[in-house]
Amino acid sequence: MRSFALLLLFSLTISVVISANTTVDFSYSGPTGPLFWDTLPGSSEICRVGKHQSPIDISLEGFTNTGKCADHKKEKVLKVKFHDAHNVEATNTGNTVEISKEGGLPANLTLKSGKYELAQFHFHTPSEHRVGGVHSDVEAHFVFKTKEANPKISVVAVFYNVGKEENKFLKPIIETLPLKEKESKDIDFIKLSSVLSDINFLDGAYTYSGSLTTPPCTEGVTWWVSKPAQTLSSCQFHSLREVTGFNSRFTQLRSDVC
Amino acid sequence: MRSFALLLLFSLTISVVISANTTVDFSYSGPTGPLFWDTLPGSSEICRVGKHQSPIDISLEGFTNTGKCADHKKEKVLKVKFHDAHNVEATNTGNTVEISKEGGLPANLTLKSGKYELAQFHFHTPSEHRVGGVHSDVEAHFVFKTKEANPKISVVAVFYNVGKEENKFLKPIIETLPLKEKESKDIDFIKLSSVLSDINFLDGAYTYSGSLTTPPCTEGVTWWVSKPAQTLSSCQFHSLREVTGFNSRFTQLRSDVC
Repeated sequence: MRSFALLLLFSLTISVVISANTTVDFSYSGPTGPLFWDTLPGSSEICRVGKHQSPIDISLEGFTNTGKCADHKKEKVLKVKFHDAHNVEATNTGNTVEISKEGGLPANLTLKSGKYELAQFHFHTPSEHRVGGVHSDVEAHFVFKTKEANPKISVVAVFYNVGKEENKFLKPIIETLPLKEKESKDIDFIKLSSVLSDINFLDGAYTYSGSLTTPPCTEGVTWWVSKPAQTLSSCQFHSLREVTGFNSRFTQLRSDVC
Repeated sequence: MRSFALLLLFSLTISVVISANTTVDFSYSGPTGPLFWDTLPGSSEICRVGKHQSPIDISLEGFTNTGKCADHKKEKVLKVKFHDAHNVEATNTGNTVEISKEGGLPANLTLKSGKYELAQFHFHTPSEHRVGGVHSDVEAHFVFKTKEANPKISVVAVFYNVGKEENKFLKPIIETLPLKEKESKDIDFIKLSSVLSDINFLDGAYTYSGSLTTPPCTEGVTWWVSKPAQTLSSCQFHSLREVTGFNSRFTQLRSDVC
């Protein structure tokens, strides 16, 4: 009986580990590209049939809450904090560079629906969201999750465009890019707090309910898209894009957003 | 009888004029976006069902004709000439900026299939073709046509990336951008010849048979994609992108190209 219980425990442990590590093998072109994400093992048909998918093309009125977009903004940020972080990890996932930290990154977001902790952030080139039909060079996604077993998700999106100035926040990340798929590198320090002040504490961000922009395209994600683009130098941009490549999902058909 | 013949001639003239001016009302997001181009009035189901569509993601081996791509290059440029041009016109089509000249631009391309004249060139941001999964900031399409009633089409694609230097060829174009839809502006002089030397007279360009990347997605287009990207300044890039916006079709599923 005891050996059966041990076997059961062992099997359960194995299956949980397998399930936690399951990721969808997707890409941004060819038969595993965005048009076929709904068919990939581990993904979901929501990628094709979902009615609340991301990213979207946001109208200029969306940010000003005027005209047809008046009173569109339903969510409110009750509290948001980004603390600086030591000893974080940059991982090349094959589709992006993801920054995380064992035990979580020191940032949180409080909405009416609960308190969200920053699980990771990563980059898309070019941007996934557009503003009035125009994309940015880079879009960073700061992915927050609640602590429930089936966590709620909220993502803060920040745009970056090439300009004359280097970006100080991105500097240690771009100087430590993991070039090979699955490779990870340690970064001593990132000034996460500067991101929050750069985007003016999410005042003026466009908020809507959408989805993950990668398989399995899970819906119910509360998005916060900050409009003013930050600057990075052309050298920084090209270094990042050499690793991330084209990793931007096409904008989704939505009639319920501004 | 004579008045009937005149009426017939008049009707035919009207219908030819209407047909020549018919353009498809398409865009890059929402219900007139790339996923729905096959359904638009004046477009073609080829946009969805065509087996030789463009753009594509070209492998690095595609340019070197090595490995599985050996002997892929079937077309040859017999002759190519780009002469400088005076008094050209820049038009904002609503989806791009198109440069043309009454009577045609002074450039031509001779292939085995015939002699092609430069009808117009225009810009996509970000690039439509990718190289090894990576896009460029801008892709210019130089559209050549034969003089037949039902002309054959060949397009030369040139990439541009943001860097420190201004682009001299693009300078007069970007300084004269028509900002409003349907607006046209005159440009005194463009140094078209510099484009051809910049791309090394198409030596090393990747060639394949594809389609127009906009509706009606006509196939049978001979593409010449030049790999080395030219440089433009971040100011030039942002000025252009403010007008063109996101106007890049997603890469198409092709198993017959490298």
